[in-house]
Amino acid sequence: MIPARGRLITLEGGEGAGKSTLLAGLLAHLRQRGIDALQTREPGGTALGEAVRGLVLDPSLRGITVQAELLLMFTARAQLVREVLRPALAAGRWVVCDRFTDASYAYQGGGRGLDPALIAQLEAIATDGLRPDLTLLLDLPVERGRERTHVRGDADRIEREDDGFFERVRAVYLARAAAEPRRFRVLDASQPVHAVLTDAIAAIEELRKDAEG
Amino acid sequence: MIPARGRLITLEGGEGAGKSTLLAGLLAHLRQRGIDALQTREPGGTALGEAVRGLVLDPSLRGITVQAELLLMFTARAQLVREVLRPALAAGRWVVCDRFTDASYAYQGGGRGLDPALIAQLEAIATDGLRPDLTLLLDLPVERGRERTHVRGDADRIEREDDGFFERVRAVYLARAAAEPRRFRVLDASQPVHAVLTDAIAAIEELRKDAEG
Repeated sequence: MIPARGRLITLEGGEGAGKSTLLAGLLAHLRQRGIDALQTREPGGTALGEAVRGLVLDPSLRGITVQAELLLMFTARAQLVREVLRPALAAGRWVVCDRFTDASYAYQGGGRGLDPALIAQLEAIATDGLRPDLTLLLDLPVERGRERTHVRGDADRIEREDDGFFERVRAVYLARAAAEPRRFRVLDASQPVHAVLTDAIAAIEELRKDAEG
Repeated sequence: MIPARGRLITLEGGEGAGKSTLLAGLLAHLRQRGIDALQTREPGGTALGEAVRGLVLDPSLRGITVQAELLLMFTARAQLVREVLRPALAAGRWVVCDRFTDASYAYQGGGRGLDPALIAQLEAIATDGLRPDLTLLLDLPVERGRERTHVRGDADRIEREDDGFFERVRAVYLARAAAEPRRFRVLDASQPVHAVLTDAIAAIEELRKDAEG
């Protein structure tokens, strides 16, 4: 028997939007429903990807050019798609991934100002056509996210960018969500945690019905 | 006074062809002629690039996909172009670089079978249009190169590939040299070291005359 194809759910959003908390809640929900869900993240999720993550976020590597940063992100992604995502989905597993290709459009495209057409070329090379079945965008005004990451301390290389950078990131995320309303669900991340989780679970339940139907 | 533009010389060739020895000889020659030449290498030449080199050559990372390997090479290149090569050339310095973009066409295109059109897209993103003024291709039958690297021991991840891989690498290098005879100089690397150096110096002297003229 060929297993049903799994589903790829990605979480996107700016700094301090609550992705980690939501991720934990979603995995618990899926397990309660008997769905074997794999958790992963970008950049990372593989030995190569985690090494790349270390380079991308290292505050001492401030001199990384925007092009090199973009290529590093897609390096980790190319490895994750072929080593983890494709095999898991083919085996019928669900995967919840903390960031994916939308993040490159938002951060390197919006934040750093790189041409989205270049990013699309890299997407074609790196992702083998793999797109999420559902993308949960945790949306939050930039200053609210700032307050939350400030409390945590220890900002990484990207978290040290200025507010203009994160405003551009947010604008690209929202534009992508508007352009693909079927794939995206925009969640108001300024709500209490349980309310965000409730909204996210509603989106996942729709996907589960589609998967069964 | 605006300094004269420097020149970029790249060394290419398969394993065991003698690039390191030639590089040392060329730098000594250029210094004798009063040319301030910078030596660098790919992948590498920057803090990020050397970290990438460690990943690319690590025998324990055998599972790197061909796409991730290609993207890693261009990550190092994007950084090298902007951090080292462009500033050095703009300041009138000559640069001798151990491998550059031709190596991606040869190794990831020829060796691994990736579409050269993809590599050309990455070249456009990563190199900002920078091409070598002179490329010295050290050409050697594959089995001769094998004998030399065998003696050295400690093969890295790429040196462990089979002969078919290196035959394809060599074929792509030779095809690129044939397509761009003005930029390439093919050197017979089976000659004694001093003869290879003599041929390389002749090519460099032509470039020096062009630079002065």
